[in-house]
Amino acid sequence: MTPFIKHSKLMLAVAVATAAFTGCKPKKAETVISGDAAQKVYVAPGKLDEVYLFASGGFSGQVAAYGIPSGRLLKVIPVFSQNPENGWGYTEETKAMLNTSHGFIPWDDAHHPQLSKTDGMDDGRWLFINGNNTPRIARINLATFKTEEILEVPNSGGNHSSPYCTENTEYVVAGTRFSVPIGNNTDVPITSYKENFRGALSFINVDQKEGNMNIAFQLLVPGVDYDLARSGKGVSHGWMFFSCYNSEQAHTLLEVNASQRDKDFIMAVNWKKAEEYVKQGKGKKMPATYYHNKYDEKTHSAKSTVEKEVLTLDTRELKDIVYFIPCPKSPHGADVSPDGENIVASGKLAAVIPVFSFKKLTDAIAKKTFDGEFDNVSVVKYEAALAGEVQKPGLGPLHTEFDDKGYAYTSMFVSSEIVKWKVDTREVVDRVPTYYSIGHLCVVGGDNKKPYGKYVIALNKITKDRYLPTGPELTQSAQLFDISGEKMNLLLDFPTIGEPHYAQACPAEVIMKNQKKIFELSKNEHPYAAKNEQETKVVRNGKRVDVWMTAIRSHLAPDNIEGIKQGDEVYFHVTNLEQDWDVPHGFAIKGAENTELLIMPGETQTIKWTPKSTGVFPFYCTDFCSALHQEMQGYARVSAANSTVALKYGVGDTAPKDQVAQK
Amino acid sequence: MTPFIKHSKLMLAVAVATAAFTGCKPKKAETVISGDAAQKVYVAPGKLDEVYLFASGGFSGQVAAYGIPSGRLLKVIPVFSQNPENGWGYTEETKAMLNTSHGFIPWDDAHHPQLSKTDGMDDGRWLFINGNNTPRIARINLATFKTEEILEVPNSGGNHSSPYCTENTEYVVAGTRFSVPIGNNTDVPITSYKENFRGALSFINVDQKEGNMNIAFQLLVPGVDYDLARSGKGVSHGWMFFSCYNSEQAHTLLEVNASQRDKDFIMAVNWKKAEEYVKQGKGKKMPATYYHNKYDEKTHSAKSTVEKEVLTLDTRELKDIVYFIPCPKSPHGADVSPDGENIVASGKLAAVIPVFSFKKLTDAIAKKTFDGEFDNVSVVKYEAALAGEVQKPGLGPLHTEFDDKGYAYTSMFVSSEIVKWKVDTREVVDRVPTYYSIGHLCVVGGDNKKPYGKYVIALNKITKDRYLPTGPELTQSAQLFDISGEKMNLLLDFPTIGEPHYAQACPAEVIMKNQKKIFELSKNEHPYAAKNEQETKVVRNGKRVDVWMTAIRSHLAPDNIEGIKQGDEVYFHVTNLEQDWDVPHGFAIKGAENTELLIMPGETQTIKWTPKSTGVFPFYCTDFCSALHQEMQGYARVSAANSTVALKYGVGDTAPKDQVAQK
Repeated sequence: MTPFIKHSKLMLAVAVATAAFTGCKPKKAETVISGDAAQKVYVAPGKLDEVYLFASGGFSGQVAAYGIPSGRLLKVIPVFSQNPENGWGYTEETKAMLNTSHGFIPWDDAHHPQLSKTDGMDDGRWLFINGNNTPRIARINLATFKTEEILEVPNSGGNHSSPYCTENTEYVVAGTRFSVPIGNNTDVPITSYKENFRGALSFINVDQKEGNMNIAFQLLVPGVDYDLARSGKGVSHGWMFFSCYNSEQAHTLLEVNASQRDKDFIMAVNWKKAEEYVKQGKGKKMPATYYHNKYDEKTHSAKSTVEKEVLTLDTRELKDIVYFIPCPKSPHGADVSPDGENIVASGKLAAVIPVFSFKKLTDAIAKKTFDGEFDNVSVVKYEAALAGEVQKPGLGPLHTEFDDKGYAYTSMFVSSEIVKWKVDTREVVDRVPTYYSIGHLCVVGGDNKKPYGKYVIALNKITKDRYLPTGPELTQSAQLFDISGEKMNLLLDFPTIGEPHYAQACPAEVIMKNQKKIFELSKNEHPYAAKNEQETKVVRNGKRVDVWMTAIRSHLAPDNIEGIKQGDEVYFHVTNLEQDWDVPHGFAIKGAENTELLIMPGETQTIKWTPKSTGVFPFYCTDFCSALHQEMQGYARVSAANSTVALKYGVGDTAPKDQVAQK
Repeated sequence: MTPFIKHSKLMLAVAVATAAFTGCKPKKAETVISGDAAQKVYVAPGKLDEVYLFASGGFSGQVAAYGIPSGRLLKVIPVFSQNPENGWGYTEETKAMLNTSHGFIPWDDAHHPQLSKTDGMDDGRWLFINGNNTPRIARINLATFKTEEILEVPNSGGNHSSPYCTENTEYVVAGTRFSVPIGNNTDVPITSYKENFRGALSFINVDQKEGNMNIAFQLLVPGVDYDLARSGKGVSHGWMFFSCYNSEQAHTLLEVNASQRDKDFIMAVNWKKAEEYVKQGKGKKMPATYYHNKYDEKTHSAKSTVEKEVLTLDTRELKDIVYFIPCPKSPHGADVSPDGENIVASGKLAAVIPVFSFKKLTDAIAKKTFDGEFDNVSVVKYEAALAGEVQKPGLGPLHTEFDDKGYAYTSMFVSSEIVKWKVDTREVVDRVPTYYSIGHLCVVGGDNKKPYGKYVIALNKITKDRYLPTGPELTQSAQLFDISGEKMNLLLDFPTIGEPHYAQACPAEVIMKNQKKIFELSKNEHPYAAKNEQETKVVRNGKRVDVWMTAIRSHLAPDNIEGIKQGDEVYFHVTNLEQDWDVPHGFAIKGAENTELLIMPGETQTIKWTPKSTGVFPFYCTDFCSALHQEMQGYARVSAANSTVALKYGVGDTAPKDQVAQK
């Protein structure tokens, strides 16, 4: 057998480059913490943090909200992955949220949280997040911190350059990472990549009132890898910018084969032009099966619908929608300055950071200052679009965000640092080590028209010795820096749930203005809601047994149930009658094949239970709710399938009583 | 329909009592934080915390490790619940850990972490944790922070008074919360509670070398609710103390019906006596089906075995094993002082805290100073066992832990405070409010023979306005207090994963001395491990396709696979070839019906994939591992079931190459 891997040249190049940059490499002994750091991150008991940080969990598939400057985890919001803690993806109401054209999928890889925008500013309505692996976009309602919608994205593989909002959330944009065969015949040799594999960039319309998403159109684009994206704003409103790597169009051993060319591309997309073509009827409907799952707050339940086609615009034919700009090399981040004029492109193996000018770009397009085509897309001349380059920024530039004072902050993966530079002069003014291997970074409002600034958060890839050890598997971590002064100052290391892949941060008031504390019981339209104890009942319909149950401090009703038979499918529909903030109840029964229910005030949730044996099965409230929480328990008796024990239920001294309905 | 609930008398009593104690009720405005609190909790970047805190996640079913004093979450250790983040309970290797006699169960309610003990001190070997709902005990290896064993507990319902170690971890003890019908006929009316329902207390032997657990014997005890327990130590070595409520033996509306009697019980168990009876062959083997799941570090895989019987000792017949001590009212905590002499019993509706003397108890037993029997168990006279009472401690006493200076700390749920009192005089010396509704508390080493002291952590039940709001569902929370001085000082609020039901804390060095950083590749005995790229292969066996895959920075081998057919069951066995600390790799493939793999250095993990359609499916590394992580990708081609596309695989320029084996 011959050795598989021949990439010594590349590894040597990286090693040499790394050696050249050792001046930037963090050494632990150098860490200097200013004396007031403790006071700056301390949020005294009873006080609130000043900023929300929404970080994706990366391979956890969820989103987590943190308080800044304390770094405290406020909430894990389940999105693409099952969450046993509150039954997400296990309860009858939430299972449908994880349906896809590949069946029920309990996990995904969530990368880029995106706050909805109005006039280029965070508006606190929704948070969008992408599922990479089985391409999907989710929308979280920031009034309830619940995932309300998950939309599958067809013709996509590795939904990475997603989801990025346009200036007024006209669209959420989702680009494929991996190009894949698209169309009628997708069963093609992998070696036919160049002929058969294409990319798709989806423009997803967002209903401005309810937030509902629908794919407006997909752009079919050359077969390369689409990595990240940002929307134009201000002067560049109507445009979108994607980074593209693997313009080598390699299909194997990409670490070597996709690192051959000196320059890959930034793709500039004129989505206003695409809209015109759609209006002109130039889109083509393509058959495509994808799921659209919505959670309804009134019924507290999710439903899936299956979409059957998608409107596509082929950029081979409609050539003035997209343009390539050459960019060194293997570009990762493509970020847009607050005024919309500068597009910062970070080639992760590049020694400089090119900054492109939107004005020069559009001038070059108007004058057709092109350097030929790549796969039928015009390539704008590098110098024609270039505003200038950031020189000697560090090694492995990845992502850039902006502050309120005209500075940009770029993460350097290989040299493990943040570099601060002046946007108009591209002059490096400060650099600070990160521990270790920073990926994305996040300035508060750092992709807004008017960033808030004050803090930058480093989202690191490696932790090693930064925390007490926990065996081979370590926490992942973020770091908080004060950027209010000229120099960046490290304040705090704080661990994260999953990989803190990317995060967005905004001032607390943007989110707090619109918080829901309870669900109104009177508005509960769940078909099995018991809105008071008089409405509780147990109904048999063949082998199906439905239990209308209520929970209130400190009892469940009914709390004694008899007459369940082996082979029955029992559905416990539990309504939390409380109408105070922070009085959830839980529900669990021994041997249940799902998880528990965690039911917020006014909500109804359902767990299915298929008892595997006869006997008496305790059930109880799982969320410590009151001084007599431990007494909030009951029993369900299960008899043999042929038993004559009648269905009975009740609560209190007279329990059990006879059922009131049996179909 | 008549109203179900008639409990106004009880609620009135609680209300009156609450009013009487309003002096103790925390008011937010009263919070005083000392000026040096920020410095006391600040762990500067690059420094390590001084204490590990292991907290159960309550209804999350997991355990979380935190650093103290920073309150930072170090790691969520998956135990009873599936964890999409690292594939726990989804991968082929870990699924068996969640098997029970009721089938595969993806969740439980984890309450009481217990560090293993040697001579009454935390020894850093293992952490035990109970699953309440479907009764189980788990053991976590603290060298790897992995759950290695889960043992189901038969004859139990709500495994709450668990798991408590004896002084040298001779046993881990697990008591049922809910009594249930035990024996040949368990299908009995719930109303026959008094005749048919019994409790079971399981004494689980722990192998001192490997930690393997086996049920040595079960004590069959009266049908009441067993709430919490603690082991005797020092003078009381050989004994165990359980709190018991519902001595009313009610089966419905327990909030009223189990709160009738002035006194319930502490049960004192002489397990040395039980051992004698076992040796004498007085135990009876009872048929009982329960699962025993073990994770083997060499094969990186779990296996289930099914146990078929359990040895029982009936305390109705063997009457000198257990004794009741009366205790006001609805006792919750039963805690033992460092010297083993004092048993502190907290009735959650009681106005005093009785402290029992082990010496007086054994004297009373020797002299038969009894007050009759309860359900065939001798009841020791209250005054005969009593050392004295803590007067006016607060309202709703729950749990007590101890410091290194002779003080006890008791949590007060209703009056929401911690009360510090002197163990020898039972005099209250300090009280401090908690926010809000404290349940358990934890002193560092607070159940050891020699507690470490310094901090007490309040594990609270209600959060409300303590953090930035996150819709109806809020984080749960703990609070850190400095107890190094005479007065307790609040330092920090820190949020937790799930409900921080109970926690144990110990100095960092106890855990750090024994940390594993990688799994040695040379010792990997996984049957599908490829220990270098030359060993990678793809083998078809009927519809089963096994992929021996390796991961190393920055590629997967093979990275091109063709010849998979619709209807195949594909198993990706991925071995992480890295041998450095903190270089995990992940693996995911589009449309996989499970989660991802997160593979530690030297480990092999397997995901099953049943492709639902033809096409080309990207796969990639999900854990950002290197500068060229984004290039760590591959493709699998799926053809129709009747296709003639041959099985091929490979990596590098020559890929794909023909398979080397096909059965």
